[in-house]
Amino acid sequence: MIQIAVLGYGTVGSGVVEVINTNHESINKKAGEEINIKYVLDLKEFPGDPVQEKIVHDYEIIANDPEVRIIVEVMGGIEPAYTFVKRALESGKSVCTSNKELVAKHGVELLEIAKRNNINFLFEASCGGGIPIIRPLNSSLTADEIDEITGILNGTTNYILTKMATDGSSFEEVLKDAQEKGYAERNPEADVEGYDACRKIAILSSLAFGRHVDFEDIYTEGITKITAEDIKYAKVLGASIKLLATSRKVGDQFYAMVCPVMIDSSNPLYSVNNVFNAIFVHGNVLGDAMFYGSGAGKLPTASAVVADVVDAAKHLNRNIMMNWSSKKLHLIDISQVRQRYFVRMKGSLTGDFDNKVEAVFGHVDVVGVPSISNEFGFITEEMTEQEYHEKASQLDGIIHMIRARLG
Amino acid sequence: MIQIAVLGYGTVGSGVVEVINTNHESINKKAGEEINIKYVLDLKEFPGDPVQEKIVHDYEIIANDPEVRIIVEVMGGIEPAYTFVKRALESGKSVCTSNKELVAKHGVELLEIAKRNNINFLFEASCGGGIPIIRPLNSSLTADEIDEITGILNGTTNYILTKMATDGSSFEEVLKDAQEKGYAERNPEADVEGYDACRKIAILSSLAFGRHVDFEDIYTEGITKITAEDIKYAKVLGASIKLLATSRKVGDQFYAMVCPVMIDSSNPLYSVNNVFNAIFVHGNVLGDAMFYGSGAGKLPTASAVVADVVDAAKHLNRNIMMNWSSKKLHLIDISQVRQRYFVRMKGSLTGDFDNKVEAVFGHVDVVGVPSISNEFGFITEEMTEQEYHEKASQLDGIIHMIRARLG
Repeated sequence: MIQIAVLGYGTVGSGVVEVINTNHESINKKAGEEINIKYVLDLKEFPGDPVQEKIVHDYEIIANDPEVRIIVEVMGGIEPAYTFVKRALESGKSVCTSNKELVAKHGVELLEIAKRNNINFLFEASCGGGIPIIRPLNSSLTADEIDEITGILNGTTNYILTKMATDGSSFEEVLKDAQEKGYAERNPEADVEGYDACRKIAILSSLAFGRHVDFEDIYTEGITKITAEDIKYAKVLGASIKLLATSRKVGDQFYAMVCPVMIDSSNPLYSVNNVFNAIFVHGNVLGDAMFYGSGAGKLPTASAVVADVVDAAKHLNRNIMMNWSSKKLHLIDISQVRQRYFVRMKGSLTGDFDNKVEAVFGHVDVVGVPSISNEFGFITEEMTEQEYHEKASQLDGIIHMIRARLG
Repeated sequence: MIQIAVLGYGTVGSGVVEVINTNHESINKKAGEEINIKYVLDLKEFPGDPVQEKIVHDYEIIANDPEVRIIVEVMGGIEPAYTFVKRALESGKSVCTSNKELVAKHGVELLEIAKRNNINFLFEASCGGGIPIIRPLNSSLTADEIDEITGILNGTTNYILTKMATDGSSFEEVLKDAQEKGYAERNPEADVEGYDACRKIAILSSLAFGRHVDFEDIYTEGITKITAEDIKYAKVLGASIKLLATSRKVGDQFYAMVCPVMIDSSNPLYSVNNVFNAIFVHGNVLGDAMFYGSGAGKLPTASAVVADVVDAAKHLNRNIMMNWSSKKLHLIDISQVRQRYFVRMKGSLTGDFDNKVEAVFGHVDVVGVPSISNEFGFITEEMTEQEYHEKASQLDGIIHMIRARLG
């Protein structure tokens, strides 16, 4: 029997207990041994809940119990998670976590401690919730040199953007609705400003490129400036606006960014709606691949955590090699990134405004929305962000710019 | 250095050599040791090709060389592949194969030999080409009890159906075009009759449900009867027709079938077009997940084979447990499977024909295509295949039936 402890009995923690109870038999069969939850660490009591008898308030009890071989950390946040996890790994206990902040900030160090002690630090649930992506990146796509990862990595913002497109509502209205439904937190900053997606793409990029990507180096822009009007233009263009977290290798250079992007139906991410997440990967021999599923939620996230527990149980004294070195990956400034831009500008389609636009930008595709007057939109050819900003500064009346991957 | 041998220098075999050469450095890093191709077995000579010096015509040379630790079998077909693979495994060499016929027919036996000898029999490339699906099923979705796998598992038929929908052409016209482009074989039977998809869903179901699914037990119907008219009805319904290979657990019973199905845009498989493949999985705690990518082609398939080589290299003397027992899974007869049916029938929408239809089928959704006269279509409520056939036998003039998963 393998004894485990769960740190934190919140949404994911209670999900982990539920999944282990629900699929007890099949999980034990796949782990090769019975998995038993010996302790659940939480500050609160849970009278009436069968978990009550396992509740402890003091981490020392878990840390000092040599029977506990695997620790599930689902508290979230950096502290005390970091201290607890580090201590566990140093004392030879494997750790499975859903904590993206912890992995993005301290992943390299914790992986090294695990390797040194011949145990494992696993974090499948930290990116894309229930979607299997960490393990496929690490053990399936090993024949490839990956040159792009682009994901819809945050369910809250994808729900908001989908709802804005369906209902024609404003960001503020939909956010309020999402908060009422429990899809968005009362303080939605981490989601809507892109911070959550930023940490996740940092983790995925580190594994895909084999060098450490620091989340603080990643340009991050959220969806708070996306308006109902932007969505109308997207519809006319047969496109949708998605918060994409992307990292790419171009030649010998790498860049990473999180921002809203207009994509069309030729992109497999186009039809990923509501709270679903998806991760697109391009490998130099594999070509295109995509992984799709529930990016959040109690049971999907717990499913990924428990799959890590099974893997840790199968590798109790054997480190599963991860391709994430402490050597830092240099990211180029996004001013050097080339792409197309969708731009909204004051004026009329038929006036001399588009002459002015073409004088500055050269050829552009112009687009108008019948129900929006006194402005028009255009899509530039591909150019660097720096070139875009230089050109844009020569024009008066630009309302908004959204990066575009069209046709 | 780990010496490997490649059996068969056809499309996939030459792809394997190319991938190992192209990504030599990163592959060796991930394998933890250098991978070297010592032999390539083929009946032909390849003068001028750098592989020429590794070509051998006699399997004995490979079988008797104790330096060879991993054998890549990419010849296809049952014999001599089966004899070669069995002998390799019995002598302690791991085998990686892309051969779905071999895995569907002899997978259980070969996995048992590998387990007994503490080596590995791996077959990621046998289903879904480059899409990582075998390893995720086996090592990522371990917290779940999987109750459905539904895949678009054959690129040729998906290309034909996509092209029929885009161009409005007939099956025969598009097949001819696909053959000219090399997307379909001169003898297309294995693809268009669904036999290829049948073997793949048998393999995936065996792994997902943990018991042996015999491909000969799976009801299999190809796409040869799908007409340009069927596609027109699908378009009016906002649906597409896909060759789906599906296996499902309903209550305590399992069924599996391969047949064309009408699906709408709420299904994540709806927008999987051209030669792309995708595999939808539903787990009891994970919910919906989907894996998408190139289901065939030289390099994507080779990418999956080489990923298996890397895994075999990392587990030279350690069997990777596979959840596929020799105990056979009983499949219920499809006469007991419940679903909806799209039916085309002679007559007119406004005549008394739909009264007759409703007298037999109860409530149906009726659909007409403006450019098709003297017939109409209807979609039944959900019922078993047996019920459907009993009812259908009471009506004259049924032209064609396609199973439907609509809203």
